[in-house]
Amino acid sequence: MTKQLRIAVVGAGYWGPNLARNFSNSPDWELMAICDLDKSRAERLAQQVGGVRVVTDLAELLASDDIDAIAVATPARTHHGIALAALAAGKHVMVEKPLADTGERGRTMVDTAVAEGLVLMADHTYCYTPAVLKIRELVQEGALGDILFIDSVRINLGLIQPDVDVFWDLAPHDLSIIDFVLPGGLKPTTVSAHGADPLGAGKSCVGYLVLPLANGAMAHVHVNWLSPTKIRQMVIGGTKRTLVWDDLNPQQRLSVYDRGVDLGLQALDGVERNAATVSYRLGDTWSPALPEREALGGMAAEFAASIREKRSPRTDGAAGLRVLSVLEAASRSLEGGGSAAAVSSGAELVGELR
Amino acid sequence: MTKQLRIAVVGAGYWGPNLARNFSNSPDWELMAICDLDKSRAERLAQQVGGVRVVTDLAELLASDDIDAIAVATPARTHHGIALAALAAGKHVMVEKPLADTGERGRTMVDTAVAEGLVLMADHTYCYTPAVLKIRELVQEGALGDILFIDSVRINLGLIQPDVDVFWDLAPHDLSIIDFVLPGGLKPTTVSAHGADPLGAGKSCVGYLVLPLANGAMAHVHVNWLSPTKIRQMVIGGTKRTLVWDDLNPQQRLSVYDRGVDLGLQALDGVERNAATVSYRLGDTWSPALPEREALGGMAAEFAASIREKRSPRTDGAAGLRVLSVLEAASRSLEGGGSAAAVSSGAELVGELR
Amino acid sequence: MTKQLRIAVVGAGYWGPNLARNFSNSPDWELMAICDLDKSRAERLAQQVGGVRVVTDLAELLASDDIDAIAVATPARTHHGIALAALAAGKHVMVEKPLADTGERGRTMVDTAVAEGLVLMADHTYCYTPAVLKIRELVQEGALGDILFIDSVRINLGLIQPDVDVFWDLAPHDLSIIDFVLPGGLKPTTVSAHGADPLGAGKSCVGYLVLPLANGAMAHVHVNWLSPTKIRQMVIGGTKRTLVWDDLNPQQRLSVYDRGVDLGLQALDGVERNAATVSYRLGDTWSPALPEREALGGMAAEFAASIREKRSPRTDGAAGLRVLSVLEAASRSLEGGGSAAAVSSGAELVGELR
Amino acid sequence: MTKQLRIAVVGAGYWGPNLARNFSNSPDWELMAICDLDKSRAERLAQQVGGVRVVTDLAELLASDDIDAIAVATPARTHHGIALAALAAGKHVMVEKPLADTGERGRTMVDTAVAEGLVLMADHTYCYTPAVLKIRELVQEGALGDILFIDSVRINLGLIQPDVDVFWDLAPHDLSIIDFVLPGGLKPTTVSAHGADPLGAGKSCVGYLVLPLANGAMAHVHVNWLSPTKIRQMVIGGTKRTLVWDDLNPQQRLSVYDRGVDLGLQALDGVERNAATVSYRLGDTWSPALPEREALGGMAAEFAASIREKRSPRTDGAAGLRVLSVLEAASRSLEGGGSAAAVSSGAELVGELR
Repeated sequence: MTKQLRIAVVGAGYWGPNLARNFSNSPDWELMAICDLDKSRAERLAQQVGGVRVVTDLAELLASDDIDAIAVATPARTHHGIALAALAAGKHVMVEKPLADTGERGRTMVDTAVAEGLVLMADHTYCYTPAVLKIRELVQEGALGDILFIDSVRINLGLIQPDVDVFWDLAPHDLSIIDFVLPGGLKPTTVSAHGADPLGAGKSCVGYLVLPLANGAMAHVHVNWLSPTKIRQMVIGGTKRTLVWDDLNPQQRLSVYDRGVDLGLQALDGVERNAATVSYRLGDTWSPALPEREALGGMAAEFAASIREKRSPRTDGAAGLRVLSVLEAASRSLEGGGSAAAVSSGAELVGELR
Repeated sequence: MTKQLRIAVVGAGYWGPNLARNFSNSPDWELMAICDLDKSRAERLAQQVGGVRVVTDLAELLASDDIDAIAVATPARTHHGIALAALAAGKHVMVEKPLADTGERGRTMVDTAVAEGLVLMADHTYCYTPAVLKIRELVQEGALGDILFIDSVRINLGLIQPDVDVFWDLAPHDLSIIDFVLPGGLKPTTVSAHGADPLGAGKSCVGYLVLPLANGAMAHVHVNWLSPTKIRQMVIGGTKRTLVWDDLNPQQRLSVYDRGVDLGLQALDGVERNAATVSYRLGDTWSPALPEREALGGMAAEFAASIREKRSPRTDGAAGLRVLSVLEAASRSLEGGGSAAAVSSGAELVGELR
Repeated sequence: MTKQLRIAVVGAGYWGPNLARNFSNSPDWELMAICDLDKSRAERLAQQVGGVRVVTDLAELLASDDIDAIAVATPARTHHGIALAALAAGKHVMVEKPLADTGERGRTMVDTAVAEGLVLMADHTYCYTPAVLKIRELVQEGALGDILFIDSVRINLGLIQPDVDVFWDLAPHDLSIIDFVLPGGLKPTTVSAHGADPLGAGKSCVGYLVLPLANGAMAHVHVNWLSPTKIRQMVIGGTKRTLVWDDLNPQQRLSVYDRGVDLGLQALDGVERNAATVSYRLGDTWSPALPEREALGGMAAEFAASIREKRSPRTDGAAGLRVLSVLEAASRSLEGGGSAAAVSSGAELVGELR
Repeated sequence: MTKQLRIAVVGAGYWGPNLARNFSNSPDWELMAICDLDKSRAERLAQQVGGVRVVTDLAELLASDDIDAIAVATPARTHHGIALAALAAGKHVMVEKPLADTGERGRTMVDTAVAEGLVLMADHTYCYTPAVLKIRELVQEGALGDILFIDSVRINLGLIQPDVDVFWDLAPHDLSIIDFVLPGGLKPTTVSAHGADPLGAGKSCVGYLVLPLANGAMAHVHVNWLSPTKIRQMVIGGTKRTLVWDDLNPQQRLSVYDRGVDLGLQALDGVERNAATVSYRLGDTWSPALPEREALGGMAAEFAASIREKRSPRTDGAAGLRVLSVLEAASRSLEGGGSAAAVSSGAELVGELR
């Protein structure tokens, strides 16, 4: 068997324990240390995963020769500093979503990783669930045909976050998934965002995102902290088939409908395109079996594989940057009363590096 | 028993037969005639409802002394002409949605009816379903508290209409319901509309509407002709409770959740409003029993009652005009790439007449 | 086009109007008359279907030369007399379920029809729904493999019938469907019935039927008038696949699961058969598209076709007799405290005539 | 705070780890040791719960002075020997379901515990879930009125157990729950069991139990290892209200329907009891909020409380014996082809001790 890579987890708060447990169980990785400014918190976590080393000083951690990579689960505003220091120290880096607190900083992180020849990976956990892997496969092999629309709903009675609004809290999931399944990634030219703060919380608690896609298609995301019912559903409509992902229905998470509207292509005197020949397909529905696999295990394996094979991981820094650019544009749109805001072209430039 | 009012149905196409059958069965009404330019179509319908008189000339119909009112189920662009002629002839008028093809014409219809002292009613059928009547009751008695958000979804594999887009086809239902249940009616200052035409049908087949409501609340409507699954669901979130209406679940159409987020009102040094004290309620759910009653029967009764009592019907011309103003603004927003479009103030002026 | 067959409907109560409307609309049939002892009831129905002849005397009806067949929708105890008279008069007969009030009488009806060379058809309406036709096709082409178990649930808050218990009221549906889809029809050797009358209604309001099938398989039927929730679901488990029919889910009535348990067939020292090698399949789920077709139309077509082709209809008198024999045995089992009661062999004898 | 009680877990196989983890986390208990014949298995478990003592010899364990109670998670056939030895050593005992492998042995265990003045508790875990605790409360406070019927379904694609059939594997859950919620516990005079072994596994893989309850009511249990869909649902119908427990619907586990059938009580000439006046209630539905609490924690607390308060626990040995008696009678009924088998009166005798 290949020699294990060695990793440390930076940040022992909410998400860090999941990363630590997961790297600890991975055949590809040896978990070496937990790093947190709060020593007792780091010690508690270190004990839970078999008594690994505890470090409170990042510089000390990065100076260690026995560490190949770090996984960062600290607040977004610290990602940039930690990642740059780690890259400078020759460590590969995985960063919790969002990649950074600004697109510019995210851009620097991506550029630096490329320059150093190190892997920068975005922790887009959902992308490694069996359902999303299957969706990506179906979309990319053309089973749905051309994409017509994507409608994603992620609503719940959720914690009102002290530092971010509902867009930055929940939409990274939807955006990273859409980025992952679309053949070229998520590259809208503009974003329109509409948010409501009816409780006076000082930030949007209900939010809607509109993203024009290629060829007249559109993606729409609904995120909501105030819904008494929990819905996590994404519909991807295509010219051939339409897919519905209902993540809260374990008995039938994915349904592929062979239903749709067909428009004839011949014009009628060149005037009304398509209007003459509308027809409907009402075919079978198919629900593929999905393996029971934990997403974090797949993500750890992909991080290791990308390092060994010296390639970009499936959810690389550029993917994180594309998501970040959309979130930034959404915030600008929100300030502008919902008018379409241009998405920074940085995303496209980075995309070309792939 | 009160003497029956006498009505004629104008238009024997798709919706006319429903109106005819319904007025024919109503204890309040005597159905006198069917009027349609297509004589054989009118005759077929007349026979189905017991052999009433057939008229092909509107002027002839309106000249009849034995008719108190007409119900109009013709294309939207003809509503204005028919209604004005009928009002001039002293007949009360009910008009299928939308009220007219432009807000200005709708406004004239409303003004004329007021001037003539006649009833002009909008055929907002959904408002007379037991579910919507119950929602209105709950909202207006304060059971939900202040409204925080309204999210309405009406999607289906639907017929692509030759003359209208998905907004004008489906959203009148959502808008008329929201208008009906909100205490002051639907009076957003602006509307943002986002539509997609990914099939090249020449009009939006997928659409989203954003309507800012009072006090920072927001209504959102999703209409879609391309969805393989049928959803008709409206969520109304309030400070006290949240209501979910799932119209396709006959076993539990309405659910009232005693769940929500409470923000404390005391400011923390005046800096972060509400941030200090967030709490959650996770109370019981309650699903009120609903009578089995056909909506059209209730609408016919309300039309008769409003005429007899010389008052505005629950869904009067002004309600129809408010819905129409939103649709017009939505079309303008769509042309403007989704930027917020002002809703004509005509709606408010008319609202004051109530 | 073939000349239409001519039919009269006998019985204008609850079910008769459905039959009358349906034969009236069928291209295969001309509806000639409505026959009921209650003249005004017959007249009301006759008018609704276009003003056909009204007869109150059965003998007079049967003496008519212009009638080829009758459809009987009268109480079960009258089926025997009416059918024998009609067969004697040379008329083909369709009878509402159950075929008769006793197996012996049903047997005579079947024998007489055979002797006279006339069609006797059981009105097993459910068998002509698109869902059941598809289930029959799947079972009979072997898509499910060998049948392992059938579990049928038909519960609701239902009317407590004055004359019959819940078994005779509801179970004919389940039994006729099982009879229809199983390759050889429903021929259990015994039936066990368990009923409860917790309200003191004088008859079972909750009931369970157990029917041993070939090769160790078992069918089970749950019928219930006291359930606040409505369920109409049948599961048919097979060695290859398992089918679930949820009749109240119009969006996915049929689901075929490629899941199951496989037992290896090699014995372990001849001692524990199959125990050594258990494995599980967790394959895809498939939901076939079903056409929107009314069941009664298909039944009328089949009645006409069987007469023209001088063959047994798909749901012939023998099928009705098999269902009746199970119901009779169920009543005996109920009297015997739930002990297994033998099912009359008459059913098998008749079955051989097919 | 009260001094903690000290417990050892006997059996480190499938269920033992759950018990160990749970007692280890309980404020009422100190987990002292893990006992298993397989030393390495015991050591693995001991390490996971903080490094407690490992014992392979039961006698050695029971000789320890520092142990107040044991929790037994070994195969059913060993329960009797272990429990008697523990009771003889003065230890309180909790036993995994079923209580024992025969009713006689279970009876001895119960009698011995009573004689020794020690607590014998049945590990009926489901009874300590928030849903079942709420059901018990509702039934016992009379919210449902008199019980009319209970219908329980527990089906799944399940492991075919090597040593027990589907009744002994799954039905203890349903039976212990019914025993828990009914005011006097589960005391049917007879049981009828119907099982199918269509795969030739040598035991029933599909099973149905019929249990007559007081006043003409009936309980029915459907257990099934071969169902591709997972259902865990119990309906409890009462004269006032009906409760539906859908354990796989976390958003609405319990629904209480204010619907039902009312029969007037006045006889009609003494002939047809109740027949004259049937009426229906179609009232509201109510879904009580349930706390998120782990069942095993509640069970550990109850075990401790019963020891401290020198009283029977809520799920005492007598409850375990009642469930065991029904299972034994079910096996006898199965051998007798489904005929009703008498339930051993031992259950009632023991019940009187409560």
